[in-house]
Amino acid sequence: MSIKRLGIVVVGASGDLAQRKVIPALFALYCQGYLPEDFQIYGLARTPYDQEGFRRKIAENLTCRYTPGESCAGKTEAFLSHCHYCQGQYSSSDSFLDLFQLMRSVEGDGPVNRIFYMAIPPTVFMQVASAMGDSGLVTCGDREEWLRVVVEKPFGRDRATSDALVQEMHKVFTEEMTYRIDHYLGKEIIQNLMVLRFANIIFEPLWNRHFIESVRIRWAEPVGVGQRGGYFDGFGIIRDVMQNHLLQIMALLAMDPPANLEAGPVRDAKVKLLRDVLPVSMNNLVVGQYGPSESGQQPAYVAEAMVSPRSRTPTYAAAELRINNPRWDGVPFLIEAGKALDERINEVRIRFRKVPHGLFERWGTVMQANELVIRIQPDEAISFEIMNKAPGLDLELIRTGLNLRYQAAFNALIPDAYECLLLDVIQGDRNLFIRSDELAAAWDVFTPALHQLESGHVVPERYPYGSSGPAAGKTLMSRHGG
Amino acid sequence: MSIKRLGIVVVGASGDLAQRKVIPALFALYCQGYLPEDFQIYGLARTPYDQEGFRRKIAENLTCRYTPGESCAGKTEAFLSHCHYCQGQYSSSDSFLDLFQLMRSVEGDGPVNRIFYMAIPPTVFMQVASAMGDSGLVTCGDREEWLRVVVEKPFGRDRATSDALVQEMHKVFTEEMTYRIDHYLGKEIIQNLMVLRFANIIFEPLWNRHFIESVRIRWAEPVGVGQRGGYFDGFGIIRDVMQNHLLQIMALLAMDPPANLEAGPVRDAKVKLLRDVLPVSMNNLVVGQYGPSESGQQPAYVAEAMVSPRSRTPTYAAAELRINNPRWDGVPFLIEAGKALDERINEVRIRFRKVPHGLFERWGTVMQANELVIRIQPDEAISFEIMNKAPGLDLELIRTGLNLRYQAAFNALIPDAYECLLLDVIQGDRNLFIRSDELAAAWDVFTPALHQLESGHVVPERYPYGSSGPAAGKTLMSRHGG
Repeated sequence: MSIKRLGIVVVGASGDLAQRKVIPALFALYCQGYLPEDFQIYGLARTPYDQEGFRRKIAENLTCRYTPGESCAGKTEAFLSHCHYCQGQYSSSDSFLDLFQLMRSVEGDGPVNRIFYMAIPPTVFMQVASAMGDSGLVTCGDREEWLRVVVEKPFGRDRATSDALVQEMHKVFTEEMTYRIDHYLGKEIIQNLMVLRFANIIFEPLWNRHFIESVRIRWAEPVGVGQRGGYFDGFGIIRDVMQNHLLQIMALLAMDPPANLEAGPVRDAKVKLLRDVLPVSMNNLVVGQYGPSESGQQPAYVAEAMVSPRSRTPTYAAAELRINNPRWDGVPFLIEAGKALDERINEVRIRFRKVPHGLFERWGTVMQANELVIRIQPDEAISFEIMNKAPGLDLELIRTGLNLRYQAAFNALIPDAYECLLLDVIQGDRNLFIRSDELAAAWDVFTPALHQLESGHVVPERYPYGSSGPAAGKTLMSRHGG
Repeated sequence: MSIKRLGIVVVGASGDLAQRKVIPALFALYCQGYLPEDFQIYGLARTPYDQEGFRRKIAENLTCRYTPGESCAGKTEAFLSHCHYCQGQYSSSDSFLDLFQLMRSVEGDGPVNRIFYMAIPPTVFMQVASAMGDSGLVTCGDREEWLRVVVEKPFGRDRATSDALVQEMHKVFTEEMTYRIDHYLGKEIIQNLMVLRFANIIFEPLWNRHFIESVRIRWAEPVGVGQRGGYFDGFGIIRDVMQNHLLQIMALLAMDPPANLEAGPVRDAKVKLLRDVLPVSMNNLVVGQYGPSESGQQPAYVAEAMVSPRSRTPTYAAAELRINNPRWDGVPFLIEAGKALDERINEVRIRFRKVPHGLFERWGTVMQANELVIRIQPDEAISFEIMNKAPGLDLELIRTGLNLRYQAAFNALIPDAYECLLLDVIQGDRNLFIRSDELAAAWDVFTPALHQLESGHVVPERYPYGSSGPAAGKTLMSRHGG
């Protein structure tokens, strides 16, 4: 890359995502020397700030993980001197002309690579894109400098709306320019999935229907929707977590080895897998919605702010997915996600089949299956659960984990997912971003069921806030051994 | 078993093995309630003790692992009241008649099950056996009570002397009566090898020449022969460690699954494996002998007490063994043992082949092979070394262990090997004892090389006391990747 100048525009700069994730991640990249010397950050939002006010607002969320001690204040000050603010309306091309003016005044002439980070609600995606298009800011073709646009979920509400959104966006930004973020793909342990599977000889021979009985992906949060009720009620748990994060994890777990590690082949492998997933049917899907906690201290979902009191939006879902290919034929992928449950966890459990001809069973020993457990949060860890002889004079078997805990094992800071993903955008590495065909294939898995749910006949099963979820979910999950 | 009375005779009761291992193990079994209520322990040795003196001597080595605190003194006192002493000559049948007299006086009439633990040097094995035979103490046949005799290595010096010893012993004791101890088989983690391999589905598919590149079994001690020079000089490291302990570990690692877990089938599987091991040739064997330490503070082997100054007895050996069967064809089993080296370790390293079509190699990543490491001592542990993505913004791979450390994982006391083995003798479980055909097969692996070594033409390579061993050993071990 010959152009060393970089301008990063954060659209929606006063919002939570920008303030808590995007700008701190840029600061972390800055502290580690990953930003070019000549970079500028521009915030665009409706909130009235002057430059100083914007910088003060940013500073509230900057922590010096990578430059502790005395140099922290200096680093922060230096970083803030690269930050600029432009107040404007998202739908107005004038606002983008103002922004352009600001950039020119800061940067002077000459080519600059640009990133537009869309830290805005989905409802204004298209307005912003159109306004940008109209402003002439986006130019394609043979220009030396590049322009990249980063967008966050939700990408539509189903296959059709997603397709429409993709097409609308393509009127302004080419697919080449578009970086669709699923921030789960930036998590260290998720990035490790491909390494685990393909940089070790021991897993691939076991990684199929002959040895694996089921795969479970569980996501649970102990809190309800809180202040996000307005957004959540229009989407529900399947769109919020399953269709993107959990399906992406599943794709990385289940895909065939890619031809190589370039972005194209990796995403080809994921698309192939997602297309092999049979659409979820209502027979294989359970939905729930939380009621008040048993103590009465926590509200029912329908009593949350900005949620319709008659809402049937699911806050819990469990699905049994099937993959129609030779590797996975007959192996259930059990995917569960819920809010207001009794724990915070996101983990994968690859359960192996029982050992054949159990030598130890005739000794009255209770045999448990091997499991490979990958805990994504909290406290990232990998654990291979195997049977061992329990120390002692009698022959007793006990399942014990071979463990790798990230915090203990790696004497290194674990970067935030956004640091990783933003660096990839800067470097043009598209590996961890969702291509449009991948997005379409992911929607196809859930779209029919979403439509049936929303035809209004399906009443989600109530479960108490803080409980382990609806009984039907447990039944579905335990069809395959609990 | 209808007979509840048990008499345990420790022949060589004043010696190190009896005092430090056998009697403390019996005490540990007593404290845990594994001895019948009506048991007696008889010591036989040449040292003159009165009953009190013998009990005081025993008490020096008893620790209350299983009954800490106040009850310790009481337990010890109660245990000692079951201990009796008989002075005598090992070769004299009169001594055994005296012993018989003592037992009758303690026990009165009626049937008693008996264990004779031969805690004596190999040179007097046969004298004791003959004297016992002559005394009429050993009776076979339809008697209700049983008699079992426990013998320790060395079992001969080669195949022929071992066979002769077995035959001589059989004149007095049937094979049924004979429990040949290899105390390594009583170690917790060694007992876990069969559980690991056969109670988990994940290992068997990988456990063959297609996936395993080499198997290493290493035994190192940081000390020389010390006071054991007189014994050691007649045997050498191959007989002291390799032909028994390390070959037993290898048999458990490499054998095919037994038909079931009864003693017969398990030992059949081990015998089959040992017979498939090709005899070691001099091309695949390195021997060494330690010289003085570089500081001069530690003596050369030939300067140790009771060692011939012209001794060519090896204190170090490394061998590359091959197993001539479909599972292991082409896989080297690298076995190394040495005294006066630079560490204390006994571990198994099962090294897997490199991952085929290394997706990550073209990224300039250094790929390391998977290894399953089983550390027998010190600090028993199992570790599966796998490649992971090193946390950080660049794609770097790092080999990290999935770990199970016994002390941390198992909230239980780890019994001493002798406790386990003695309990098996009491219960008549022959699983962990060496059958005569197994012993013969183990000797066949090393006998030709031992004869060549002892024809006198082979001079062991000198290595400094406290070093990492002879250079030729390292060369042999590194033929297969270091």
